[in-house]
Amino acid sequence: MGFHSGRHFLQIPGPTNVPDRVLRAINSPTIDHRGPEFVELGLDILAGIKTIFKTSNPVIIFPASGTGAWESALVNVLQAGDKVLMCETGHFSTLWTRLAERLGIDVEVIAGDWRRGADPDKIQERLMADAGGAIKAVCVVHNETSTGSLSRIKDIRGAIDRSDHPALYMVDTISSLASVDYRHDEWGVDITVSGSQKGLMLPPGLSFVAVSDRAIQVSETGGMPRSYWRWDEMIEQNAKGVFPYTPATNLLYGLKESIAMLHEEGLDNVFARHARHGEATRRAVTAWGLDNLCVSPDEFSPVLTTVMVPDGSDADALRKLILDKFDMSLGTGLGKVAGKVFRIGHLGHFNDLMLAGTLSGVEMGLRLFGMDNAKGGVDVALEYLAGQAAA
Amino acid sequence: MGFHSGRHFLQIPGPTNVPDRVLRAINSPTIDHRGPEFVELGLDILAGIKTIFKTSNPVIIFPASGTGAWESALVNVLQAGDKVLMCETGHFSTLWTRLAERLGIDVEVIAGDWRRGADPDKIQERLMADAGGAIKAVCVVHNETSTGSLSRIKDIRGAIDRSDHPALYMVDTISSLASVDYRHDEWGVDITVSGSQKGLMLPPGLSFVAVSDRAIQVSETGGMPRSYWRWDEMIEQNAKGVFPYTPATNLLYGLKESIAMLHEEGLDNVFARHARHGEATRRAVTAWGLDNLCVSPDEFSPVLTTVMVPDGSDADALRKLILDKFDMSLGTGLGKVAGKVFRIGHLGHFNDLMLAGTLSGVEMGLRLFGMDNAKGGVDVALEYLAGQAAA
Amino acid sequence: MGFHSGRHFLQIPGPTNVPDRVLRAINSPTIDHRGPEFVELGLDILAGIKTIFKTSNPVIIFPASGTGAWESALVNVLQAGDKVLMCETGHFSTLWTRLAERLGIDVEVIAGDWRRGADPDKIQERLMADAGGAIKAVCVVHNETSTGSLSRIKDIRGAIDRSDHPALYMVDTISSLASVDYRHDEWGVDITVSGSQKGLMLPPGLSFVAVSDRAIQVSETGGMPRSYWRWDEMIEQNAKGVFPYTPATNLLYGLKESIAMLHEEGLDNVFARHARHGEATRRAVTAWGLDNLCVSPDEFSPVLTTVMVPDGSDADALRKLILDKFDMSLGTGLGKVAGKVFRIGHLGHFNDLMLAGTLSGVEMGLRLFGMDNAKGGVDVALEYLAGQAAA
Amino acid sequence: MGFHSGRHFLQIPGPTNVPDRVLRAINSPTIDHRGPEFVELGLDILAGIKTIFKTSNPVIIFPASGTGAWESALVNVLQAGDKVLMCETGHFSTLWTRLAERLGIDVEVIAGDWRRGADPDKIQERLMADAGGAIKAVCVVHNETSTGSLSRIKDIRGAIDRSDHPALYMVDTISSLASVDYRHDEWGVDITVSGSQKGLMLPPGLSFVAVSDRAIQVSETGGMPRSYWRWDEMIEQNAKGVFPYTPATNLLYGLKESIAMLHEEGLDNVFARHARHGEATRRAVTAWGLDNLCVSPDEFSPVLTTVMVPDGSDADALRKLILDKFDMSLGTGLGKVAGKVFRIGHLGHFNDLMLAGTLSGVEMGLRLFGMDNAKGGVDVALEYLAGQAAA
Repeated sequence: MGFHSGRHFLQIPGPTNVPDRVLRAINSPTIDHRGPEFVELGLDILAGIKTIFKTSNPVIIFPASGTGAWESALVNVLQAGDKVLMCETGHFSTLWTRLAERLGIDVEVIAGDWRRGADPDKIQERLMADAGGAIKAVCVVHNETSTGSLSRIKDIRGAIDRSDHPALYMVDTISSLASVDYRHDEWGVDITVSGSQKGLMLPPGLSFVAVSDRAIQVSETGGMPRSYWRWDEMIEQNAKGVFPYTPATNLLYGLKESIAMLHEEGLDNVFARHARHGEATRRAVTAWGLDNLCVSPDEFSPVLTTVMVPDGSDADALRKLILDKFDMSLGTGLGKVAGKVFRIGHLGHFNDLMLAGTLSGVEMGLRLFGMDNAKGGVDVALEYLAGQAAA
Repeated sequence: MGFHSGRHFLQIPGPTNVPDRVLRAINSPTIDHRGPEFVELGLDILAGIKTIFKTSNPVIIFPASGTGAWESALVNVLQAGDKVLMCETGHFSTLWTRLAERLGIDVEVIAGDWRRGADPDKIQERLMADAGGAIKAVCVVHNETSTGSLSRIKDIRGAIDRSDHPALYMVDTISSLASVDYRHDEWGVDITVSGSQKGLMLPPGLSFVAVSDRAIQVSETGGMPRSYWRWDEMIEQNAKGVFPYTPATNLLYGLKESIAMLHEEGLDNVFARHARHGEATRRAVTAWGLDNLCVSPDEFSPVLTTVMVPDGSDADALRKLILDKFDMSLGTGLGKVAGKVFRIGHLGHFNDLMLAGTLSGVEMGLRLFGMDNAKGGVDVALEYLAGQAAA
Repeated sequence: MGFHSGRHFLQIPGPTNVPDRVLRAINSPTIDHRGPEFVELGLDILAGIKTIFKTSNPVIIFPASGTGAWESALVNVLQAGDKVLMCETGHFSTLWTRLAERLGIDVEVIAGDWRRGADPDKIQERLMADAGGAIKAVCVVHNETSTGSLSRIKDIRGAIDRSDHPALYMVDTISSLASVDYRHDEWGVDITVSGSQKGLMLPPGLSFVAVSDRAIQVSETGGMPRSYWRWDEMIEQNAKGVFPYTPATNLLYGLKESIAMLHEEGLDNVFARHARHGEATRRAVTAWGLDNLCVSPDEFSPVLTTVMVPDGSDADALRKLILDKFDMSLGTGLGKVAGKVFRIGHLGHFNDLMLAGTLSGVEMGLRLFGMDNAKGGVDVALEYLAGQAAA
Repeated sequence: MGFHSGRHFLQIPGPTNVPDRVLRAINSPTIDHRGPEFVELGLDILAGIKTIFKTSNPVIIFPASGTGAWESALVNVLQAGDKVLMCETGHFSTLWTRLAERLGIDVEVIAGDWRRGADPDKIQERLMADAGGAIKAVCVVHNETSTGSLSRIKDIRGAIDRSDHPALYMVDTISSLASVDYRHDEWGVDITVSGSQKGLMLPPGLSFVAVSDRAIQVSETGGMPRSYWRWDEMIEQNAKGVFPYTPATNLLYGLKESIAMLHEEGLDNVFARHARHGEATRRAVTAWGLDNLCVSPDEFSPVLTTVMVPDGSDADALRKLILDKFDMSLGTGLGKVAGKVFRIGHLGHFNDLMLAGTLSGVEMGLRLFGMDNAKGGVDVALEYLAGQAAA
């Protein structure tokens, strides 16, 4: 790599810019994960993380990436051959589908066009048709990181309720947790999956599973052969502040700090900030004459914006140019939109001026890329942000 | 916790004292795990870690604790109902057994008394009796962290060879790698499992699986339903310096640094240092009038020493006293030796004076615990260490 | 302080944003400043810092702020009652004047209007009038941090030469070194003063004095009673890699890293980057309809831009608003321009997108402050920066 | 340097082992030293440092090493030609003498043999002989870092009082502050000088001057020409939480943390710990058959112990051997005891096991150095420490 002065702009939709407070916390000596000092830490973070998921039930923390939490969600309550309903919202819902299939689960996919969230009506319709209760779980990605579409988790709960179907409700909040309002208990989610490297502002390496009483009950007698991803021992030992196998201690130091930071800012302020940055970004995109991949206004993501490049343009060439010229990493197009879109992450440890820098990098990149009309985006974003700041 | 001045002595047999160089490396901003800067890092550590396992084959790195590597070793090459031979060497071999059983594997255990390594003769005998080749794998823990006994991996390879049996050979080096000589290729091991928080001097959160060509072949057509722990995608994407799902980037920064440190010291020097510290510790234990749980001199661990307390004494009360009075963490007795032993870790980022401090803490603790004859241990250790330093 | 998400924008003209590489280096254990490991470090940085001053003579490093280097420059070569010529360029030249006066030096000031650099012609004129050689030194601030005007150091050397006057030539490069080209030897400067917290990208706490052979000679027999600020012992002990009294060891770790970073980027690239950011900022200022305090185009500072607010406006109220709303620190007006100007630092560890964020913060702040016409500044800056990036 | 595994033992009597908590604090982004966040920090540390000096008067903090504080103490209240009384206790009192002489002060030295503290009787005798009050100040080093002798500051105050002499009382606590009880106000000291890198557990780079009302009064009309080391502007601006010139911001972060740590432990506990470690060390020295340079039991330093090597031995060769073999830095003999002594620092962030490691390194080093009878020192130290821990 050539030398780059100044701070890199890490504007992929995760991993996000880790606050130096969090990095410093991680930079503490590792301690005995069975000693009394760890117990204090363990009880502290295990209580704290519940406030982020808005649950009074256990949240299980695995030393793993978010992918591991997907697996844990499935293997504890499902068996090979069980049917689940997956809602195709983009690349990550597709990956979750593939993961389930690899575990022998019979996945039925409600197809989607990658330009909106999961459709509550279609879910309701499908569940109502499943009189025999063959469908064991409904799986939804809250914020589809590959497209920037948000699914309406509360509305989907309503759809399940209206269909009077016993399926477990599983939600992936890997890229929404701590950036978008989420209520595990109130919204009646059975299993919520998340990861450390997005709204929690940590490096990757921790994954989370929040569970409802019903999910726990099902896991007690059901599930597949499993060991690493088991909930029972975790829940049992977590009650004493420890873990059944060695936890990722230093990342837990960071988690303690990030939970503290989120509450210092106030979760509602965190969510409002993300919403504001999403809106500012979309206004810039519009000004540039480009399209947001997401076409459903009430499902626009406050976490990232996926921008479509004109036909014939190579979004990855644009990304490379921006990385080379302006030292900013943007998200690549994944799966079927590869090369056709780039993604701007505006989540995590972020503020108005970092967003202004980010949008400036995109705007200059578009100009260098030959899109001469891509102007005024930063301007409209600043106007909007200034207006918000005045309010 | 009360305030403790000075550095804590973390003398459990892992996690070990993380060098400040490694902590500083981890304390770097997280980067895009799909960008060119990461590719450089990825190729670098994936090549470097091979030199630690002494293999020219792939070493797969999971964002997980060592327990995950155990699971990965099994699910890629075995199926439910397959028989494996586990050698009981202590608590960790027992945990691996339980993990295998949870996955549906039929585990046959060669019982052990927890006071020595796995017995090559018994393994050979059992394999020779298995004319039908029902046993699919032999699983051995190189350094049994709960007892301080080393298994003779090379000799066991010889035993397998002599029995002319096709079983795969799986070895857990979680607490031996980078502390005790280990040769994945030369010793004909098929699957070597390890973790980050011992000899590699990293915080917990990374686990490793080194694989032979034969293990890869078996995995291609065999194995259980699996996703997170798959090797195929890892090997494929690792070739390009990236990972199929988000890696624990910051811990990988630390890994790069720890590999560099191991080579700066020289692996042979690292092993000699651990051997020296094991010998010094055992001399101290003898001087104190206490017994090493391990009774087999050619299987004494250079990594930790497990000390038996006299009948009627509570080893955990002693540990607590030492923690309270001298701010040193020692390892607890696990499983069937709980309360009867304590473990002194002398591995990782360690030196003669840290060992002297460690042994001093134990000696003073024994004295305060009422073992008035527990004297002279530090003295003999210093005499030995001085002699070695003179050489 | 309320909670602020994201990175603070520290856009005062120093201290500057310290690179995380430098912070990590500083975060290393302190070592024995008389041991062999320190000697390696000492020789390394003492050689390295010469390349930054572009001198083959000694550069003396004090554990002190830049103010200390001012004092060291004076007390080693001047005596109470000696006359020196100071060129008033702004607040810092005035502070240096006051410091000299406090030491009993007879300071004659060539008055200035704070809107340009020191005038070579006036200096020449004054020196030519000093036939008796009463003036012992000419003191110039290279980059006047309070105004954003650069003095033409090479031209002033020419002026001194043309006047054939023996005065020593002293230059303050506290806020220019490593941001603007500077050549201690080639430009015939006798004493160059600098500090750590600007272009060197370090926290404050180190100050520097580069000396010519002639300055050393004068100091050997001249100077005031002095101890801390002496050169002789420093030069003598530095030759062996050590210091006569305890150095600020951890900041020296940072200095080693910052010197390395400057050479990785290439000094000429560093200077070009600062020049580019100065130009972009000035274009924004013009677009906002505001005036640069500096009116002399060939003396515009690439390090900071001092912006005049309209009569009746309180620049500090604007600064406070920007700090509160956008978490950006701008420089206050100092001395006689207090309240009338604010200063935008664009130096040190910086890049195009950080500048874009900075200018965005100013533009939004101006808008919120009621300057409704303050638009388009970011736009013209982006246009310029994009053009430069294309080149 | 060759590679050394494990932590270096930095057992010079300062700089001391910096706690990782302090290093992490220092590793925070530099902030605007004129902004509101700094003001909070400034007021906090300026109040906190008073509790360490036990004064309700100002304590001035310079970005400088301790040597600078010596200079500040003198130049604010004395004039060239003024007479001061210095008590020769070792190398550092001699350096302070030389510094004063360089500033034109007429220093009268009460000679000492470097084996004890300053003698209150001799001071009283000299002051009583000075009927005309020619002596303007009495200067004493509280803990003479070159010898390990403590001067009885309270008793010397008594001596001055009994002589009814108006001399100012100046004390250097560079290596005693925060390790040995010290009471600026109660003991009637006028000027107390200190530094950051000893008991305050910080890297070098900060120095401190605590002042009495009388010292302030004298400085207001007296003192030498001075600028950097002035008190008046410091006191004035410190009242508002800021500094007249750029402070060493990042070291101030560390200071905040170290003050917090000292109060978490409790100052009396800190002092008792140092006393215990001094006693344990002296017992070891006696067991080795070696002599403490300090011969006055009520003046033994709890901070360091200076050990005399037998005639004909080269203490620096021993130190080099210990550094090479055991990676421990010990203090060299300074001034007239160069080569004849080595110094064991047992101060700062330290505990029983670190001391045990330290003494073990010395004991092994002595053995390797050919002092075959140097045995049993660690043993008696452990016996003592265990006894203390039991109490």
